[in-house]
Amino acid sequence: MDNLKNKFKVSIDLMGGDNSPNKTLEGIDLFVERYKKKNDYFFYLFGDETVVLPKIKKLKHLKSNFKVINTKIVVSNDLSPMSALKKGKGSSMWESIQSQTILNSDVTLSAGNTGVFLVMSKMILKMLEGIDRPALAGLWPSNNGMNLVLDLGANVECSEKNLIDFSEMGSALYRSLFPEEEVKVSLLNIGSEELKGTEVLKNAYSKLKILEQMGDFKFVGYIEGNEITTNTSNVIVTDGFTGNVALKTAEGVANFLTSNLKKYLSENLLSKISVIFSYFSLKKFKDKLDPRKYNGAIFLGLKGPVVKSHGATDALGFSYSVELCYKIARGKLNEKIKKNLDHVKNLDEKG
Amino acid sequence: MDNLKNKFKVSIDLMGGDNSPNKTLEGIDLFVERYKKKNDYFFYLFGDETVVLPKIKKLKHLKSNFKVINTKIVVSNDLSPMSALKKGKGSSMWESIQSQTILNSDVTLSAGNTGVFLVMSKMILKMLEGIDRPALAGLWPSNNGMNLVLDLGANVECSEKNLIDFSEMGSALYRSLFPEEEVKVSLLNIGSEELKGTEVLKNAYSKLKILEQMGDFKFVGYIEGNEITTNTSNVIVTDGFTGNVALKTAEGVANFLTSNLKKYLSENLLSKISVIFSYFSLKKFKDKLDPRKYNGAIFLGLKGPVVKSHGATDALGFSYSVELCYKIARGKLNEKIKKNLDHVKNLDEKG
Repeated sequence: MDNLKNKFKVSIDLMGGDNSPNKTLEGIDLFVERYKKKNDYFFYLFGDETVVLPKIKKLKHLKSNFKVINTKIVVSNDLSPMSALKKGKGSSMWESIQSQTILNSDVTLSAGNTGVFLVMSKMILKMLEGIDRPALAGLWPSNNGMNLVLDLGANVECSEKNLIDFSEMGSALYRSLFPEEEVKVSLLNIGSEELKGTEVLKNAYSKLKILEQMGDFKFVGYIEGNEITTNTSNVIVTDGFTGNVALKTAEGVANFLTSNLKKYLSENLLSKISVIFSYFSLKKFKDKLDPRKYNGAIFLGLKGPVVKSHGATDALGFSYSVELCYKIARGKLNEKIKKNLDHVKNLDEKG
Repeated sequence: MDNLKNKFKVSIDLMGGDNSPNKTLEGIDLFVERYKKKNDYFFYLFGDETVVLPKIKKLKHLKSNFKVINTKIVVSNDLSPMSALKKGKGSSMWESIQSQTILNSDVTLSAGNTGVFLVMSKMILKMLEGIDRPALAGLWPSNNGMNLVLDLGANVECSEKNLIDFSEMGSALYRSLFPEEEVKVSLLNIGSEELKGTEVLKNAYSKLKILEQMGDFKFVGYIEGNEITTNTSNVIVTDGFTGNVALKTAEGVANFLTSNLKKYLSENLLSKISVIFSYFSLKKFKDKLDPRKYNGAIFLGLKGPVVKSHGATDALGFSYSVELCYKIARGKLNEKIKKNLDHVKNLDEKG
């Protein structure tokens, strides 16, 4: 085994999600294929050795930089968070989270039961000092690259303090993932004028105006829903109810449009011929907007970063969650979060 | 002039919105072209006679069933609601609203300043008994037809009473527009389980379960954002903040997808040829999803129905707002609303 000191350490629950551990292992293999040259990562892999080891032997690219840790228990999808806490100790999910404290791992990834994963993570890793609530952040395709939206549903209602914490944590995450870009924070609202919106938003607005001076981000003010997909801002902050509705609405509209497009493009011979001609262009279109590329939601606010892959994604989708974890570890997310949250604390002490 | 008793009477502010009165008059003419055979409509047209009359003479289809009422004042787009109330009396907008009380008109349409139009309408028509707040309802394309979403932004925060009123008023509107369809009401939430969501939503949920028995609608419970574009329900009820974010997000995603599609389809010779082959299919796709077909937001909760056309739409878009008004008048919207609201009152009295 290489010296782990200079490696970014990612802990992975191999057993969660549909078609696992095949999907998870193949996803890791796809990541390794893309990042082999870097050789600066190390995986702690949690699952049933007897199942997992023979499969790993057959992988093409994952030959080193990993350690399998034997766990016999699997957290099933129909378990409630409460019963999972009782029965889930020693499971692949539990151990993969725990490894952040025991094995000094940098980040944990699972495609398993979301509710259980969040509750276990809170229990094992604990909340960061000063944070009331964790937020769920996700990537959102935009005109020129990727935006980050949070909260996507962890908190139904949010205070002004929550929104400010989300802004600072989201900024730290964006900077970790895209170190070359300027961080531009916005608050999602129903108009761009300062007078619009709820009291919570107005209060968050004026505090973010002050916090902006600490240099963690540029605050661009309010945006409306149609700007989530533009480059007006790249860290879009909202409460979990609104964020979840926006995300699901976007998914619905995207499905609606693409299924209509497919229908019309396959309705007669001429249009079917057209699809052959435009095959490569349509493929590029599909590739760019492939939701698997945005797979992975990040829980922010815990003492260690935790990433949830979509349970139904495939190996390619899972490989992008692995990549997200790698970038989070490389970007030293939690160091950045702590630095940013100190600025909020300073503001509170002054104000 | 025909006997007006058997006509559906629509009052139109000819002067509001971009490129008016050309757009508004041509839009009315397009409507008449489509509905000529019915001959069951009558227009009160409000604008400057010297400008409007020569233009009307040149129209192809609008030859009867209208009366021009001379108004010299125009409400400009940059006026605040407060100053418009002072200066706006006698304007085409004001008079077109007032005509519901003076001329017994059934409905009013304007493409002018939204804020002013809403404030004037509230002032002139007054709120329906028992309604605290008016809601803004809009059409939303779905798998098999059109859904109705409200509130789209008139109320930033909503009580459980508001959501229940919106459900009853939205049901009345849907039944007026689509008399053949079953009305299916849902509450927009972040999960379909009964336990999810805010207290306001949970309370509205249990009251709608009871109100459902009055027969105004079927209550299908909670839906998530991705179901707005499906036929799970056709009257989707939410607060104005969430509704506005969902609407704008949908617009943003639709723009993002279609502009990416265009880009990829025009990037090389092969794909350009493909567009020729698929021209008619793509055109059908575009036609079906043409936002001009959904043009027109309905203010619900006033003693008379009022429709706001998008200010920037063209003649075709305006013609669909005229059609919306015609259907609202034909469907006797306000009678239906009053009947439905009586059911809410009965529920309240019972406790």
